[in-house]
Amino acid sequence: MLPIQRRLFSASTAARTTPKSIAQFLQTAPAARIENTSVSGYVRSSRKYKTEQFVDLGDGSSLKSLQAVMPRSLGADGLVADGRSIRVGSAVRLNGSWVPCENQEKQTHELKVSSVEVIGPSDPKTYPIQKKYQSLEYLRSMPHLRSRIPMNAALLRMRSDTITALTSFFESQNFTQTHPPLITSSDCEGAGEVFTVASGTPEEQARPKKKAADHFFRGPKYLTVSTQLHLEALAQSVGNVWTLSPSFRAEQSDTSRHMSEFYMLEAEMTFVQDMETVMDLVENMLRSTVSSLQQSASSRDLRAAVSALRHEEPELISDAELDLRWAGMANAPQRWPRITYAEALELLHEAQETHGSGYFATPAPEWKDGLASEHEKWLAETISAKATPGWKTPVFVTHYPRESKAFYMLPSGNSSGRETVDCFDLLVPDMCEIAGGSMREHRLENLLDTMKQRGMALPTGVPGRSTSGLDWYIDLRRWGSPPHGGFGLGFDRLMSYLSGIPNVKDVVAFPRWYSRCDC
Amino acid sequence: MLPIQRRLFSASTAARTTPKSIAQFLQTAPAARIENTSVSGYVRSSRKYKTEQFVDLGDGSSLKSLQAVMPRSLGADGLVADGRSIRVGSAVRLNGSWVPCENQEKQTHELKVSSVEVIGPSDPKTYPIQKKYQSLEYLRSMPHLRSRIPMNAALLRMRSDTITALTSFFESQNFTQTHPPLITSSDCEGAGEVFTVASGTPEEQARPKKKAADHFFRGPKYLTVSTQLHLEALAQSVGNVWTLSPSFRAEQSDTSRHMSEFYMLEAEMTFVQDMETVMDLVENMLRSTVSSLQQSASSRDLRAAVSALRHEEPELISDAELDLRWAGMANAPQRWPRITYAEALELLHEAQETHGSGYFATPAPEWKDGLASEHEKWLAETISAKATPGWKTPVFVTHYPRESKAFYMLPSGNSSGRETVDCFDLLVPDMCEIAGGSMREHRLENLLDTMKQRGMALPTGVPGRSTSGLDWYIDLRRWGSPPHGGFGLGFDRLMSYLSGIPNVKDVVAFPRWYSRCDC
Repeated sequence: MLPIQRRLFSASTAARTTPKSIAQFLQTAPAARIENTSVSGYVRSSRKYKTEQFVDLGDGSSLKSLQAVMPRSLGADGLVADGRSIRVGSAVRLNGSWVPCENQEKQTHELKVSSVEVIGPSDPKTYPIQKKYQSLEYLRSMPHLRSRIPMNAALLRMRSDTITALTSFFESQNFTQTHPPLITSSDCEGAGEVFTVASGTPEEQARPKKKAADHFFRGPKYLTVSTQLHLEALAQSVGNVWTLSPSFRAEQSDTSRHMSEFYMLEAEMTFVQDMETVMDLVENMLRSTVSSLQQSASSRDLRAAVSALRHEEPELISDAELDLRWAGMANAPQRWPRITYAEALELLHEAQETHGSGYFATPAPEWKDGLASEHEKWLAETISAKATPGWKTPVFVTHYPRESKAFYMLPSGNSSGRETVDCFDLLVPDMCEIAGGSMREHRLENLLDTMKQRGMALPTGVPGRSTSGLDWYIDLRRWGSPPHGGFGLGFDRLMSYLSGIPNVKDVVAFPRWYSRCDC
Repeated sequence: MLPIQRRLFSASTAARTTPKSIAQFLQTAPAARIENTSVSGYVRSSRKYKTEQFVDLGDGSSLKSLQAVMPRSLGADGLVADGRSIRVGSAVRLNGSWVPCENQEKQTHELKVSSVEVIGPSDPKTYPIQKKYQSLEYLRSMPHLRSRIPMNAALLRMRSDTITALTSFFESQNFTQTHPPLITSSDCEGAGEVFTVASGTPEEQARPKKKAADHFFRGPKYLTVSTQLHLEALAQSVGNVWTLSPSFRAEQSDTSRHMSEFYMLEAEMTFVQDMETVMDLVENMLRSTVSSLQQSASSRDLRAAVSALRHEEPELISDAELDLRWAGMANAPQRWPRITYAEALELLHEAQETHGSGYFATPAPEWKDGLASEHEKWLAETISAKATPGWKTPVFVTHYPRESKAFYMLPSGNSSGRETVDCFDLLVPDMCEIAGGSMREHRLENLLDTMKQRGMALPTGVPGRSTSGLDWYIDLRRWGSPPHGGFGLGFDRLMSYLSGIPNVKDVVAFPRWYSRCDC
């Protein structure tokens, strides 16, 4: 037997470098040549001429294909060698030289192919992804394949660039990125729109749970609907925190803005006296992130792909409107408008009076009423247009009625019997709410009073060792609880808003919603 | 009513800047002064002298406290004004001047306090987090509070720095960061160690599910145990991909290395001919990340905190050992050892022959046997010591027997009747396996054969519109499936290994394991 050292290092230690992506090939300086190279990718299309065959190759790294030219006499291996042409959809490695084109109008370079390896064959006759137009709705039935479409690959890359930009932004602001738990004890006061988590065989699960030990976790547990409560605990420990984390809702609805599983960006700030600071964070974060995306190849690819598809999918947002959305988030010279719910109500009633009672399908809301989507859309459009003419910015609506909001929000006052809380929604044109936040009630007695008024279960355990329900959350107020606040932003909605693809199910790789969890 | 513009911008638009953290104050140049400033934080301790009171303030941003000096005559508000001293655990804002100390031995600066605001009172008598030592195990009963301990705050910060470093690394390698789904259709061939997801009231859930429509998603759904299968689909679309995503296992065990909810870092590479490339990725990623962490304040704070706690918690890994762990991952001059399972077996049997049959509590494994933790530990220690003397590196063990590994792994050959697959585990001293990966079977017919041999359900639906079980995964092989491979790394285990805190439940903020889901 060989001594260990000999055996361990018998393998080659030569550096292995990642092969160039097609995006990298396409960035070659116009006059440069690369001899003896190889390109891997999928055949997007192929055109045969008398002596040559042209192949367009894609690998998801760019919207544009790489053009390869090969002599028709070329006999390599696999499907080429047996006389048939390289098939659309197959994975190939093409070896040759990357040389400047004579006519550089359409592309600067092309690959002069010397040999071909078909490393993943394909049968274009059965391939469900067709060159001819297939509707976004139809493609939802094959999430495992539709991301191969160049537009969807660009969406994936833009999502990645967005995460990177957010990571940089929060790093620059000294926020700590955290991993709050997804399995939680809180069922949101039994609203019934949470998923429960169980273990065991179907028979074991169907058995009624009579005692704690019948549950894996000694009690019913749920998938989180928001990590906020846990983020508050972490913010009290380490200062400002954020997370980009999955959230879940078991709503039996099928709208273009909701899914059962979605990513939420949530942040929590400590030692904050003023909700304006939290809104500033939201605004700065989005300005910084969208500015950074404006420089990204992924967003340029995505915009171009959406633009090209628009004649087939009229629901896709127009280029002009998308220009306004991007500029409104990244470049608007003025701070985004901030109006109160009370002011919003006045404006809606004024508009209804001016234009007549049929102006809104849902009559303008009275105090305590929620804003209908229609009203949110109108507010987002109107306020932005009037406050920042020429710019389509998001709009903050603040200080909603206390009764309509969550128990943990900080009351902001009582004006002529109308109690409000320090909270805000961020509305954008068309899409409505993409973010919401508030100051949190940081005072123990006030929190307990609110919970009592709302008939919520009050602490039963010994403070500090509470293990059930919301006792632990109340505990956070017992020892050193400074004023604090935070927000949550629907990450998939942001992707939908920026891409101009109106249905969040089309911007998420494997969407889950009521009755649908394909793949 | 005011015109919209007037109302919208009546609020101050003065820039609000985030207040300085204590870490930032502590970085002030030695001779510099900051007049009229304010510091927010929590009182860690307080000492009274005749005319002055010294307060140590922490905010989670640094292990070191900030020292404040205030005249005892100072009557501010709250607990100070009523004659009592500032209490440990309370949240305060101290206003004053940050001035160089005369004696700079212990700290360069101190805060000369002119006024105090107690913004979050505390009662130290009931505060469950005590200055005196509390065991890590005891602290697990109060995850909502224990992160306030400076060591745990440093852990949170190091976790954040690790995520940032990984994001940079994968960005530099042109990998796309993705969000694969957590609710999935696959129950891992009914292994029974998955959590199921359901909706509705307890009564509705207990009702037997007779037809698809009885389920929220028209069929039983599970929490993912690995995102690999979905990553493979994304990698075929967009090239190399990665994710840092929650995974779940419903194992009824309580070990120091397992939890029911944990973060996995998973990556998948396309157009990869050779598993060495995947191992290179793992090694480069860890080298790059740990090198970057070596420069971080969070890791220095954490190392110092662990060092200080060791006399109370002897299970914490020693400084000398931790130095070796960090250097072995970041700085080892040689490539990490890579040996095969067959070679590992030989070495274990040699050791057993040399030292006698009692050398291992579990006898050295025979072909097809799994490696016991004890064997993995021995291999990690021994191989690393012999192959890279002076360095304690991780060790790759490759090419396990085919029968003992997952169906999707690529067979690597058949030598004298012993079939192996192209797979690897990454072992580290003490902790055992922290990562594992493989080449994937990319050929349709071979994948179907393996599944048939193992008695797995074969595709029933129409290719391309498959919505159940693993049909969609098989589909990925039908049209353009190049050789590819990837890996998964237990992110919490990595944090545990680097911190020297041996139980993963102590490095995760809100751990979940069998029978425990506190808060």
